[in-house]
Amino acid sequence: MSRFWNQRVHTLKPYIPGEQPRIAKLVKLNTNESPYGPSPRALEAIKAGADDTLRLYPDPTALALRTAIAAQANVPVECVFVGNGSDEVLAHTFRALFQDDAPVLFSDVTYGFYPIYCQLFGLTYRTIPLRDDFTIAPEDYEGPTGGIIIANPNANTGISLPLPAIESLLQRVSEQVVVIDEAYVDFGGESAISLIDRYPNLLVIRTFSKSSGLAGLRVGYAIGSPPLIEGLARVKDSFNSYPLSRPAQVGAEASIRDEAWLKQTTARIIATRERIITALQKRGMEVLPSTANFILVHHPSCSAAHIFTALRERAIIVRHQGDSPRISGWLRITIGTDEEMDSLLTALDDILPR
Amino acid sequence: MSRFWNQRVHTLKPYIPGEQPRIAKLVKLNTNESPYGPSPRALEAIKAGADDTLRLYPDPTALALRTAIAAQANVPVECVFVGNGSDEVLAHTFRALFQDDAPVLFSDVTYGFYPIYCQLFGLTYRTIPLRDDFTIAPEDYEGPTGGIIIANPNANTGISLPLPAIESLLQRVSEQVVVIDEAYVDFGGESAISLIDRYPNLLVIRTFSKSSGLAGLRVGYAIGSPPLIEGLARVKDSFNSYPLSRPAQVGAEASIRDEAWLKQTTARIIATRERIITALQKRGMEVLPSTANFILVHHPSCSAAHIFTALRERAIIVRHQGDSPRISGWLRITIGTDEEMDSLLTALDDILPR
Repeated sequence: MSRFWNQRVHTLKPYIPGEQPRIAKLVKLNTNESPYGPSPRALEAIKAGADDTLRLYPDPTALALRTAIAAQANVPVECVFVGNGSDEVLAHTFRALFQDDAPVLFSDVTYGFYPIYCQLFGLTYRTIPLRDDFTIAPEDYEGPTGGIIIANPNANTGISLPLPAIESLLQRVSEQVVVIDEAYVDFGGESAISLIDRYPNLLVIRTFSKSSGLAGLRVGYAIGSPPLIEGLARVKDSFNSYPLSRPAQVGAEASIRDEAWLKQTTARIIATRERIITALQKRGMEVLPSTANFILVHHPSCSAAHIFTALRERAIIVRHQGDSPRISGWLRITIGTDEEMDSLLTALDDILPR
Repeated sequence: MSRFWNQRVHTLKPYIPGEQPRIAKLVKLNTNESPYGPSPRALEAIKAGADDTLRLYPDPTALALRTAIAAQANVPVECVFVGNGSDEVLAHTFRALFQDDAPVLFSDVTYGFYPIYCQLFGLTYRTIPLRDDFTIAPEDYEGPTGGIIIANPNANTGISLPLPAIESLLQRVSEQVVVIDEAYVDFGGESAISLIDRYPNLLVIRTFSKSSGLAGLRVGYAIGSPPLIEGLARVKDSFNSYPLSRPAQVGAEASIRDEAWLKQTTARIIATRERIITALQKRGMEVLPSTANFILVHHPSCSAAHIFTALRERAIIVRHQGDSPRISGWLRITIGTDEEMDSLLTALDDILPR
């Protein structure tokens, strides 16, 4: 605390990201990064762009990147907004498109940054409990609201909400913005982008950090009707004219043009996920049905805290969110390479009761 | 305007950055970029880092980069904050460290983003007129204030405020944060970093976009007492955990370690500036005494708007801020290479009355 802080800063409780430890030969399964990395074309583009042109500011509108995203999503370029990771896109969304006069609605188990954005921007919020089976109950998103955000597949659970359920929510809620956060959609979810021309209040948010293997480059984007995109651009242009560096713009553009790489690497991750779910179930673990690049798991007699610590002693890092009541008994495990997942199974054979 | 925007968005008037036109063989003297580009070591570091590690999130605390900045500035690493360009650092500063209960104070001629941050964060502000000779009058920064920001050298004028004047301001104002924005300090100004251990309310903000020739990489930083840095970090961690990509962190780190490159390129720019000031004065132009990598110039009988347009027809772009009353009769010209400045002189010989 400091007398020099604005009073709002005193009450902020910042988001705590998954740790990035410096341990040799670490099996890092805690922050849902891709084990296969970015498209080689993205790396080539970044290398090729590391020249004297870095002396110049980047395109503040990131037109070439937005054009490539628009082509891939089959929408006009006016429907695309880009930012410094989907976290920045989310922040601008909370600021620009959610209303102050009623609470923002989101699940009680979801991405932990949502309540923090509300804090930062002085928005109220109300969490909507997941059902007992951890699925989202869209019918519970009702009553006065300043906006709705749903991660689909949901963060932490990996469970998808089917597209018809999202559409029925949009048919009920037309006066507030509904955001679908599709960070993990490429691993088996169904995108809501196909709905944007029918629902002007729908915003879909995506990232290059997960399926595109570019968490280190910091690029995210939003797709929605032009008025929503213009609202985001006004806040962005009042905050930072040039949020995306030249390396970020050229790297992400090359990445999104390499659809074959995305298909091939996501297919491998999905195949590994299905194999590992079966292997964990054989070891007595409960595993939620995931359409993401992670799984949420639980053991009936061995505590999450114990497994977390025992794995860490074996240089395997997973995520345990002990302060989130509904999932404090669960561990979130990123799907890594087959070799990494075999190390996990070997370690669990050592840790779990027989 | 859209019914989906938060009401605050309706009144935002975003910052309009200098244009980034796509004209072949352009002489671009409008956004104060370095003509000499980044250190070759920075480019090597970015190329070397364009590999599989981009799949991983960057260090959210940017410790290696902050350590290099701290060593160069001769301060502890706890005194250093980094962000996605100094624009993002400024935005977090306005949010975290300026108070709502009295107006923020800044010059009537300075960086155009300051009033926009106030708008965005709901802060009031009061502009303090420069003296008739365009110098800052520090004694006029008085009365109730939520914080003070001074660009030094000043944006648009290029004129420096001497360090003793800043120190006497700090002796009077101890309960609010005083920010010195040193984007252009390497071109002949005097840094206030030496004062931070005596004034816990002093924050100095710097950028890699100007003297380091890395406008395309988006890295800025702040140096101040640990409580100020912690306030900035709390806002940053409530907005975006990972604002600096891996290429940005490694490129900026290599850049700041290459002091020889900085010295050599800034010396060349300063020499060109002094030569060009003399040449312009010989052509009847008034030139403010600049310690920056740009000059503010004016001709007694030929309007700024006319010169701007005539230069543009010759593919030379400078900056004319026609909507800023006190400098609407002036042009801001970036110091480019000697060759570029000679093109400017040739064009002016053609444009100006004899």
